[in-house]
Amino acid sequence: MKKLSIVKIGGNVIENKAELTKFLNNFSLIKGPKILVHGGGKLATQLGKKLGIESKMIGGRRITDDKSLELITMVYGGLVNKNIVAELQSLNCNAIGLSGADGDTIQAHKRPVKDIDYGFAGDVDGVSSTTIKKLLEAGLTPVFCAMTHDGMGQLLNTNADTIASELAIGMSAAYETTLYYCFEKKGVLMDVNDDQSVIKHIDSVSYQTLLEKKVIADGMLPKMHNCFHALEKNVHQVRIGDIEMLHPNANLFTTLTL
Amino acid sequence: MKKLSIVKIGGNVIENKAELTKFLNNFSLIKGPKILVHGGGKLATQLGKKLGIESKMIGGRRITDDKSLELITMVYGGLVNKNIVAELQSLNCNAIGLSGADGDTIQAHKRPVKDIDYGFAGDVDGVSSTTIKKLLEAGLTPVFCAMTHDGMGQLLNTNADTIASELAIGMSAAYETTLYYCFEKKGVLMDVNDDQSVIKHIDSVSYQTLLEKKVIADGMLPKMHNCFHALEKNVHQVRIGDIEMLHPNANLFTTLTL
Repeated sequence: MKKLSIVKIGGNVIENKAELTKFLNNFSLIKGPKILVHGGGKLATQLGKKLGIESKMIGGRRITDDKSLELITMVYGGLVNKNIVAELQSLNCNAIGLSGADGDTIQAHKRPVKDIDYGFAGDVDGVSSTTIKKLLEAGLTPVFCAMTHDGMGQLLNTNADTIASELAIGMSAAYETTLYYCFEKKGVLMDVNDDQSVIKHIDSVSYQTLLEKKVIADGMLPKMHNCFHALEKNVHQVRIGDIEMLHPNANLFTTLTL
Repeated sequence: MKKLSIVKIGGNVIENKAELTKFLNNFSLIKGPKILVHGGGKLATQLGKKLGIESKMIGGRRITDDKSLELITMVYGGLVNKNIVAELQSLNCNAIGLSGADGDTIQAHKRPVKDIDYGFAGDVDGVSSTTIKKLLEAGLTPVFCAMTHDGMGQLLNTNADTIASELAIGMSAAYETTLYYCFEKKGVLMDVNDDQSVIKHIDSVSYQTLLEKKVIADGMLPKMHNCFHALEKNVHQVRIGDIEMLHPNANLFTTLTL
């Protein structure tokens, strides 16, 4: 089975031009078919401030009203996505920037209102693996921004971690897929105050123990939940670490398997 | 030879939601492979005003400094492009939004400074017809915004009329290509004050006469120059008219042939 690498980068890389360039260079050197997924983080909030559009957050999640959706479409879908694509092209990586609406690659529905109305937030229904496979086989490297659509003309804001894991799940029937989550730490830490205390390997058994001991807590909880959900749906492997993790000689990162 | 339709829409359609919906509906009904090219017109200027970024124009052409390029990337590449794609998806047209950087589809170079420094304005060098053909054969409908890249990481602002004609020229080796320029009039007019005075057919001989009689003047000059340039480079046919031109029963528009 052919290998596929799916890499998600967070706001900390996007917001720092030097870090982003270093990351894109590492990413471009990954052999074989690959996909990049990015959010946009604070850049949308910053532009919103200039335009007098307030970013509403509840529990760390953005409430996407119509003005926020416009912001996100401009910043994630336009500014961030197209600049990443242009920079990857300069590194001989034939990137193609996509939202989930492009090629109908990621279908979603507007999150139903329960306690909180998240506005134009999209929960993923599925991935068009056939179209994505055709793009990969054409030698293209899809670069996804954190947007989906409902098939009825509505763009939706979707968490980039979720997009990455849904893509990995959707592509795992056709590829042996490794999902990389790049964030600011070198991996999942045993001691949150010690950046070198990286847990090198977590499986579903040790995951339970780490949950009980509350080593995995707070922001890591949904991230790890996403990872194990992906593994249960046939994703080959998940790796968590910083941008150095993509380097061929990297050895300090966390590998997750079932 | 398989037929291909390439349609360019201008700012007057983009800026009017009802017109845009009517246009996209007509466009989605075109049979066979098709490509859409759009500018963004005044929307970038409007956003610029809100952000305190002044739009500098010389002779109707935008001077693209770094701030203007950011604006254009957000508005053309993000807001306008992704919303068109999402709306086409709702009309069962499998659209994929692209800049010239995506898939390295349109290569350009920064316009050299002579009398005027146009900033990050791109003059087109070529089109990757192989990649675009693969997208079309995958059942996708490319939607191009008016941006190109220089292959060294720099996005460039490029006139949408030029992008449409360069795409048509590039695709004409593989397809019998018809290029449609949609604008606010029903065609090239004999009398600029009479909207019904559409010249139904212009060939290279009558073109010269119309130039000499100054029937073709001002803003129509570069447009017509683009059209005949495309025809000389093997584009099958060019049509000029308003959005009704795409309707299967349309009969009032201008057809250009050599």
